[in-house]
Amino acid sequence: MDARADQKGGGQRIGAVMAEIRSRIAGRGLVPGARLPSVRAFAKAMHVSASTVVEAYERLAAEGLIRSRPGSGFYVSTPLAPLSLSEIGPKLDRAVDPFWVSRQALEEGDLLKPGCGWLPSSWMPEAAIRRALRSLSRSEDRVLSDYGTPLGSPQLRQLLSRRMGEHGIPAAPDQIILTESGTQAIDLLCRFLIEPGDAVLVDDPCYFNFHALLRAHRAKVVGVPMTPAGPDIEAFGNAIEEHKPRLYITNSAIHNPTGATLSPVAAHRLLKLADRAGLTIIEDDIFADLEHEPAPRLAAFDGLDRVVHIGSFSKTLSASVRCGFIAARPEWIEGLVDLKIATSFAAGRLSSELVLLLLTDGSYRKHLEELRVRLSRAMDATTGRLAALGITPWLQPRAGLFLWCRLPNGIEAAEVARACLADNIVLAPGNAFSLSQSAGSFLRFNVAQSEDARIFRSLERALSRCG
Amino acid sequence: MDARADQKGGGQRIGAVMAEIRSRIAGRGLVPGARLPSVRAFAKAMHVSASTVVEAYERLAAEGLIRSRPGSGFYVSTPLAPLSLSEIGPKLDRAVDPFWVSRQALEEGDLLKPGCGWLPSSWMPEAAIRRALRSLSRSEDRVLSDYGTPLGSPQLRQLLSRRMGEHGIPAAPDQIILTESGTQAIDLLCRFLIEPGDAVLVDDPCYFNFHALLRAHRAKVVGVPMTPAGPDIEAFGNAIEEHKPRLYITNSAIHNPTGATLSPVAAHRLLKLADRAGLTIIEDDIFADLEHEPAPRLAAFDGLDRVVHIGSFSKTLSASVRCGFIAARPEWIEGLVDLKIATSFAAGRLSSELVLLLLTDGSYRKHLEELRVRLSRAMDATTGRLAALGITPWLQPRAGLFLWCRLPNGIEAAEVARACLADNIVLAPGNAFSLSQSAGSFLRFNVAQSEDARIFRSLERALSRCG
Repeated sequence: MDARADQKGGGQRIGAVMAEIRSRIAGRGLVPGARLPSVRAFAKAMHVSASTVVEAYERLAAEGLIRSRPGSGFYVSTPLAPLSLSEIGPKLDRAVDPFWVSRQALEEGDLLKPGCGWLPSSWMPEAAIRRALRSLSRSEDRVLSDYGTPLGSPQLRQLLSRRMGEHGIPAAPDQIILTESGTQAIDLLCRFLIEPGDAVLVDDPCYFNFHALLRAHRAKVVGVPMTPAGPDIEAFGNAIEEHKPRLYITNSAIHNPTGATLSPVAAHRLLKLADRAGLTIIEDDIFADLEHEPAPRLAAFDGLDRVVHIGSFSKTLSASVRCGFIAARPEWIEGLVDLKIATSFAAGRLSSELVLLLLTDGSYRKHLEELRVRLSRAMDATTGRLAALGITPWLQPRAGLFLWCRLPNGIEAAEVARACLADNIVLAPGNAFSLSQSAGSFLRFNVAQSEDARIFRSLERALSRCG
Repeated sequence: MDARADQKGGGQRIGAVMAEIRSRIAGRGLVPGARLPSVRAFAKAMHVSASTVVEAYERLAAEGLIRSRPGSGFYVSTPLAPLSLSEIGPKLDRAVDPFWVSRQALEEGDLLKPGCGWLPSSWMPEAAIRRALRSLSRSEDRVLSDYGTPLGSPQLRQLLSRRMGEHGIPAAPDQIILTESGTQAIDLLCRFLIEPGDAVLVDDPCYFNFHALLRAHRAKVVGVPMTPAGPDIEAFGNAIEEHKPRLYITNSAIHNPTGATLSPVAAHRLLKLADRAGLTIIEDDIFADLEHEPAPRLAAFDGLDRVVHIGSFSKTLSASVRCGFIAARPEWIEGLVDLKIATSFAAGRLSSELVLLLLTDGSYRKHLEELRVRLSRAMDATTGRLAALGITPWLQPRAGLFLWCRLPNGIEAAEVARACLADNIVLAPGNAFSLSQSAGSFLRFNVAQSEDARIFRSLERALSRCG
């Protein structure tokens, strides 16, 4: 019963086993995530040797139809798994898988997280949150226990309308929909605006969760190289010609991961191209309140015609309180609200009331001022410590928390990330952000999460080992 | 330039205008929701008469490609709109559109809402919620401001695991994922389990938002007639044969809208059929805590093999605090968490901590006991008041808040709903729940929202007018 004894007609037998598994998956006898029959049992059932089954399973795994989990057998791949593996490219390993970075950053425990995308909880306005919870405990009954209205809190939408107005974005309160989060806002817009197979433009590099989200929508993701002043306009125009995209998702200011700021001239050219091509733009502006001086916003130039503006409070108030928003052209609001009801029924009323209390608490402006100063200092300090290791930022950001840094001598960021993880330090390797996988020697540093000296000692060791 | 002068070759000109609009929509020059050029301007541009453009626009509107808004022109239909209109069937009007019922029920104002699907806020444990908010205000920093872990609060998952265990459902804490809501739980599972075009079975009638949610997933929704003991098993088997569905979504106990309870024999037969066909079942159990005596659960019979169990706290604790959960087979958890991160990043940590505090507050059991007694009384009272109007329930539910009632003499429920809305009373007409539109003379009453005598006076008037 060993491989040799099975050699004659082996190819045919392997093919038969593969065909049987394929047909069971197609017929839904084996659903995604289901464990395949054990090698021994299936060999017996199919009247072949165990090694034939092993070989068949391994070929199916190579095709992506099933997955092996060491020590526990083979499983039918879930719909997302083959997509996520196939689209990231051949260099994929778990350390540059976007999900890996998110998950490590979200896990609790004794980890240092210079690779994570948000502020430490000690930087958040905890006294104000405690105060807001106490005032919330005195609200009227329906605030505490009833669903919110379809659009969400009128007072919070009024306030957001005023705030956007200050940035030149003309969003009336009834053009604003509250959502569970910034991510859910983009997700809702993708459901509304794109069909499976539609092309969507993103910056290369961009926030890695855009890749994951767009894959979940079965979109064809197309990257446009990023420059310090915004996406490369020529490449943007070419991508429009070639792919006829329906949508472009970007951050105009405090770009994630590069910290870049869109220049007015680039904004104008982008909008002209978008206009000609009938392209919708989602401007994800969740870092807005961290700016020292407001940079141009596409939504302001465009007047919310083909630009949709989204935001949230996870980066400046609390990531534990989920609340985001969409500002869009009036004719889209009804369809978006229908979709919001269909897929999440109502956004959290309690969360939006809490955000409203926090934004109208007299201390919010002071919190932001302190936060910006603290971030500036941390950015200087981190830049200095990285320079000592020969690590230089691609650009000096005007504000925010990110430094997008090139490692010296073409050292592989994924290797450095793996080495530092052994010291309980979570880094964000560049290729997790890059559709073209062209950021292999970059790391994104969150300066607010880089205050511990152990990070730089570990980095130094990793660089000398990987260099 | 009137219609007559344009008659010669008019059909051709109308066709040319239609073709031009079609090509602009296809080429994304006109995106969904965009306003079409004004009749006058487009007539000039196309060198045709205004009436030709009007006729072309009206034909495109009849096809569903564009929509007219009285007084404001024509707009490109949004992806959902034609789907929602086409699938509900010819009898559709806004009063039986599921979105209409949701939206009316969610709007605030001076409305009585016997048609809404949840308890009045005065029935919720407001003292406990206020207490929980005050203790939350004393939590450690990261509870107040940091993201939760990928699966969600370990303590809450532990508690849910124990609670499900008491109902015979073997869900280990790491088989449980916290979500934003019960709706989001089903949405996540649909993303994970189905592809556009897949067939999905639902009960007929069923919770109307299942239709909306499944349309958002571009699923082919197939209804199975409901009996007082669960879905009609023969029809269920036939639907499996004919449509090869991937998924079935149901409530096993306190079925919405009928109040039916799945019998053990029906549960067993359902599971056998599902097993043979490789069908996954989502058991939506959000009304579980309202039961007097636990009815059989598919997830308990099946051991979470091909049944996924979901729940939330909107119906017993607070709809303002968003928190739901999924209990599924272990191999699915990783893929589901990846999708949850991609599409909503993290569920609300603050909400789940609040739910944890409320569930471990000694008063929860007492609140439930009181709630059940109060619901029983309201059910008796509502049954009596309806009987006086000749309105009889399809079955006497064992528990819960719904009475599924047939109107006398085949009176149209949609007409009655329209008449009562004029008195600021929101009803839930049967066809909003029925894929086959066979519940035209049914209404769903929420007994907890039917305590005001004005409801029955308005109903009486409406019945005599519509009868």
